[in-house]
Amino acid sequence: MSSEQIKRQVYLDMKGLEEARDLFLSRIGPAQRTGVEIIKAGDALGRITAEPVFAKRSAPSFHSAAMDGIAVRAEQTYGTTERHPKILKTGEDALWINTGQALPETFDAVIMVEKIHQVDEDHLEIRSPAHPWQHIRKVGEDIVATQLLLPQNHQIRAYDVGALISAGAFSVRVWEKPRVAIIPTGSELVHYGDIKETEELRKGHIIEYNSLVLAGLVRESGGIPVVYDIIPDFEDRIRVALTQAIESDAHMVIINAGSSAGSRDYTVHIISEMGEVLVHGVAMMPGKPTILGIVDGKPVVGNPGYPVSATLSFGQFVKPLLYTLQGRRSPDPQTIKVQPTRDIPSKLGIEEFLRVNIGKVGSKFVATPLSRAAGSITTLTRAEGIIRIPALSEGISQKEEIEAELLVSGEDLLNTVVVIGSHDITIDILADEIRRTGRDIRISSGNVGSLGGLIALRKGTCHMSGAHLLDTEADQYNISYIKRYLKGLRVSVFHLVLRDQGLIVARGNPKGVKGIEDLGNGDIAFINRQAGSGTRILFDYKLDQLGIGSESIKGYDHEEFTHMAVAVDVLSGAADCGMGIFAAAKALNLDFIPVEREQYDLIIPSAMLDQPNIQAVLEVIQSMDFRERVISLGGYDPSKSGQLWIEVEGSEN
Amino acid sequence: MSSEQIKRQVYLDMKGLEEARDLFLSRIGPAQRTGVEIIKAGDALGRITAEPVFAKRSAPSFHSAAMDGIAVRAEQTYGTTERHPKILKTGEDALWINTGQALPETFDAVIMVEKIHQVDEDHLEIRSPAHPWQHIRKVGEDIVATQLLLPQNHQIRAYDVGALISAGAFSVRVWEKPRVAIIPTGSELVHYGDIKETEELRKGHIIEYNSLVLAGLVRESGGIPVVYDIIPDFEDRIRVALTQAIESDAHMVIINAGSSAGSRDYTVHIISEMGEVLVHGVAMMPGKPTILGIVDGKPVVGNPGYPVSATLSFGQFVKPLLYTLQGRRSPDPQTIKVQPTRDIPSKLGIEEFLRVNIGKVGSKFVATPLSRAAGSITTLTRAEGIIRIPALSEGISQKEEIEAELLVSGEDLLNTVVVIGSHDITIDILADEIRRTGRDIRISSGNVGSLGGLIALRKGTCHMSGAHLLDTEADQYNISYIKRYLKGLRVSVFHLVLRDQGLIVARGNPKGVKGIEDLGNGDIAFINRQAGSGTRILFDYKLDQLGIGSESIKGYDHEEFTHMAVAVDVLSGAADCGMGIFAAAKALNLDFIPVEREQYDLIIPSAMLDQPNIQAVLEVIQSMDFRERVISLGGYDPSKSGQLWIEVEGSEN
Repeated sequence: MSSEQIKRQVYLDMKGLEEARDLFLSRIGPAQRTGVEIIKAGDALGRITAEPVFAKRSAPSFHSAAMDGIAVRAEQTYGTTERHPKILKTGEDALWINTGQALPETFDAVIMVEKIHQVDEDHLEIRSPAHPWQHIRKVGEDIVATQLLLPQNHQIRAYDVGALISAGAFSVRVWEKPRVAIIPTGSELVHYGDIKETEELRKGHIIEYNSLVLAGLVRESGGIPVVYDIIPDFEDRIRVALTQAIESDAHMVIINAGSSAGSRDYTVHIISEMGEVLVHGVAMMPGKPTILGIVDGKPVVGNPGYPVSATLSFGQFVKPLLYTLQGRRSPDPQTIKVQPTRDIPSKLGIEEFLRVNIGKVGSKFVATPLSRAAGSITTLTRAEGIIRIPALSEGISQKEEIEAELLVSGEDLLNTVVVIGSHDITIDILADEIRRTGRDIRISSGNVGSLGGLIALRKGTCHMSGAHLLDTEADQYNISYIKRYLKGLRVSVFHLVLRDQGLIVARGNPKGVKGIEDLGNGDIAFINRQAGSGTRILFDYKLDQLGIGSESIKGYDHEEFTHMAVAVDVLSGAADCGMGIFAAAKALNLDFIPVEREQYDLIIPSAMLDQPNIQAVLEVIQSMDFRERVISLGGYDPSKSGQLWIEVEGSEN
Repeated sequence: MSSEQIKRQVYLDMKGLEEARDLFLSRIGPAQRTGVEIIKAGDALGRITAEPVFAKRSAPSFHSAAMDGIAVRAEQTYGTTERHPKILKTGEDALWINTGQALPETFDAVIMVEKIHQVDEDHLEIRSPAHPWQHIRKVGEDIVATQLLLPQNHQIRAYDVGALISAGAFSVRVWEKPRVAIIPTGSELVHYGDIKETEELRKGHIIEYNSLVLAGLVRESGGIPVVYDIIPDFEDRIRVALTQAIESDAHMVIINAGSSAGSRDYTVHIISEMGEVLVHGVAMMPGKPTILGIVDGKPVVGNPGYPVSATLSFGQFVKPLLYTLQGRRSPDPQTIKVQPTRDIPSKLGIEEFLRVNIGKVGSKFVATPLSRAAGSITTLTRAEGIIRIPALSEGISQKEEIEAELLVSGEDLLNTVVVIGSHDITIDILADEIRRTGRDIRISSGNVGSLGGLIALRKGTCHMSGAHLLDTEADQYNISYIKRYLKGLRVSVFHLVLRDQGLIVARGNPKGVKGIEDLGNGDIAFINRQAGSGTRILFDYKLDQLGIGSESIKGYDHEEFTHMAVAVDVLSGAADCGMGIFAAAKALNLDFIPVEREQYDLIIPSAMLDQPNIQAVLEVIQSMDFRERVISLGGYDPSKSGQLWIEVEGSEN
């Protein structure tokens, strides 16, 4: 490290998102388009026609029977009536024919089998006349040679393949799929094929996966990814790799990453040296450190390093480029109007892409923001949608509806049960167990603490809420809180689990914590839960019982929002001790000092109980399979799981 | 052929569609499900998880800087203010660090580079304190080992691949893709690879393409097709092929066709002999001759022979089966409410699938039925949607709205220009030319004759109408008809083309037709156009001028709906002569005797003229490229194409 590092690059001229994309795509002309290849019709599924396809044959190519029956000469049947039937001699006046068979010469109509009466081996009787060309598929009835079969820039579907072959277009000119060279760069990167699944990495090393996410996104946009070996952060090595990619048959290049303004971010230098940088820095978040350039006529994109940034930047720049290269328009994203469950502030001057959980509660779709961390790939895997907050907005109010782009199907959304409130690991088990039973129901869980969950119920932004709020006076869980916070709302309270709360400490308990009474000694760094969480209420209650002032506890003001976050803080050494459930300690192989066995309930508006998805949730938590999985976690007692404990209505005053 | 053919099979017990599907799918249990395979995470895009995936690693795996700047010990920064800055010694109190780099031991916070003032080579000044863990990505912040990463039966997306690798799930257990054996049968079938594109087929032979359509549909449903060689219609040969398919690693078998009740339709015998026939005959149209069976525990489907039947039957039975085999639910089709442009009768007791053209005219989506012919694959390629008429309905009225399943995207639909009226080949050229210019606009054309087009304009079921209606008294085209039929509607009339109408006769003109005057001689079989078509009006006018009575013309009562259909009748020998445009004769290499150069116009409601799609149509027909293509057809004069001729309003009386 040296002080030279302070001489950093800057984003010379950060562009707005639309402006950046227009600047980039306006440079894509015929020279950048992919070439034309000729492929067999049978291989053409999903490909895009490079020119209109005209029929070379007519179909059908011969007159044929459209029904099973006999071929006749219409003229010979004229005058036939019910009262004056006619006898035809088989082999002369009538020939047996099956659907699809060629009409014999000199015959011009078909009488269907149901209308024929067999007289003897050689004679048939008919009771109505046939008109010419009756029940006959004529030549060219479907396709006439020279007719336009498929227009240009048309994506070929399964039945289009049939039409092509039927019309004698046995081969078809289609646009080549765009080939995309993907160059992962970074000295800290390790290929997942070079290590074992649980092998410990050297500190500072990271498993590279962006290149595979980008490869998947390229495939989803109809392109062919060519992933290069990982290139360490040496300017020369990156230059060599880019040169190689430009000289290859790739239609475009993605370098990931080195696109930000850090001191070892060489990409922008190299692109500007070898070609032209059109954009460095886009007013979007995540995704700001995006470079858009052209080298030797080929588009080159410097894609950001954080996985969420990489994915979103791809969607805004590479995806539309790939569609343009194929002569197609990017499909518009599926969108839906959603109502945020809370106010969401956002930075002015930058367009923000916020991952959200979405579910339909009552008549509206509600959206709960996930973490904004650009490094958190799981915010994408867990999200149902993305809200875009415009650059000129300082955020959105929970009172306004806003559009969300969907990451799941509309059906998935209708099958999403929104659980907001206190976090418990058994809700993850529930989410999986419900799918294991073959139900196509998603559980979307927002962790805002028990009180936050009650507020969400009151606002109508969730289907159910997990809570473990101890009323210290009544020595009873949840009921007094429901009465106080859910005025006028009738809810049913079901037990989810009984669970052990306690102190989570490092493996081997190096500070020798025996209980909450030790926390006031000033030596132990504590990590607290947020105000309003059931765990915090329990902890404060215990402090009160023991007569310990919160000011004497080091770290009392540091808050986390989940049990797992508390456990992670302990594991990482950020704290010595925190209050949480046994399962969190066990998951990270930490030690646990039990404090209380508490009651964790699911609170559901009674009016929603007859909804099939809610019924399914209740069935699953009553099942033996669910209980067994919960028991195996340790620290849980599922003996009452799924029992309706009580029905309560919030009081009016 | 023999009279034994009258002893036909019958559909023993035709089932309703839903009943048939339920009966079939209820037999799919764990034994039919595809197996589990373990694949590398990097290859998992689009695959379906066979079990829940739990994280094996935490990510990040080390504390790292979330910003570029310096790593510090938070404690050393306490008390710093703007007025009391602090000096830190680099290399001791502060270490330079880039985003993503590991936090050095004993350090616990990062101060971003923008907040640092360089004093000299070894010293930095800060003006605010850092709190512990500020700007640090902590271990496990994204993923905690043991957490549920992806549930079971989840289709893996590009960013899910990233999450898998990041979490140490380098390989993943997914359901095998279902393998589908497809056996094409039929002695009349020829493989397209065995002939040249324009090579003449032996009469009665057909190019086989259903197997490739089915293969494409299998791929679109996530399966792997295995297409067998064509098997001729011999019972033994089909039995051998089915045995081979059942003994192979295929999860299911499709036999196409031989599924109807014809005398050479062996499939049902063979399936019942080797296993069990669950359903033979389904009350759907097209698609009735469907067989659903089980042989040695494997589903076997006898798929109908007509291409539209094959496709629709696949969608109702094989597609849901393939999804079930993969542990997924069939995606619901995208649907839209449409208004039929005319009453559509339908047979009671059978569910009909009607292909329709759809476009948005004004505020509603209108649907025009295409041909019902099950043998016409182009009814699928040209349709925007499918209307299902329930078994218990005798049809739908043009007054009711009905749901249509979409075959194109909703966007395509918004970009569809509906042209209803007289048919002209230059409208196909327009449809292609508009796409060649890069516009993503579909032209959906319904051929109902010129008068039918005016009626569609009046009903508001089209954007524009093509007409060539001669007012024989005023010797002027279209205007008097518009005044009479479009009361209160203001329309703009644009010239599309001037074109030659005449008599289409066989190559070499074997009957020596010189003009309309020859048609009354009783020797020439004429094919007429339907009443209300401009061509019919012109023909009747010419007959009137010549004083020829229609009763003296053989075939006057036989009507076709398009120029091409008339030409096909002449080509096939169904008629000696018909009235139509030069281009139709030329396309089929027939002879042509000119009768009149007529005016063909596009009539557009003036209120629609500012719509971008309408503007695009007008631009294209004014372009030189369009005119050149039209000239090359022959028999057209495009010198006035795209000119606004006149604006007219229908009179009120």
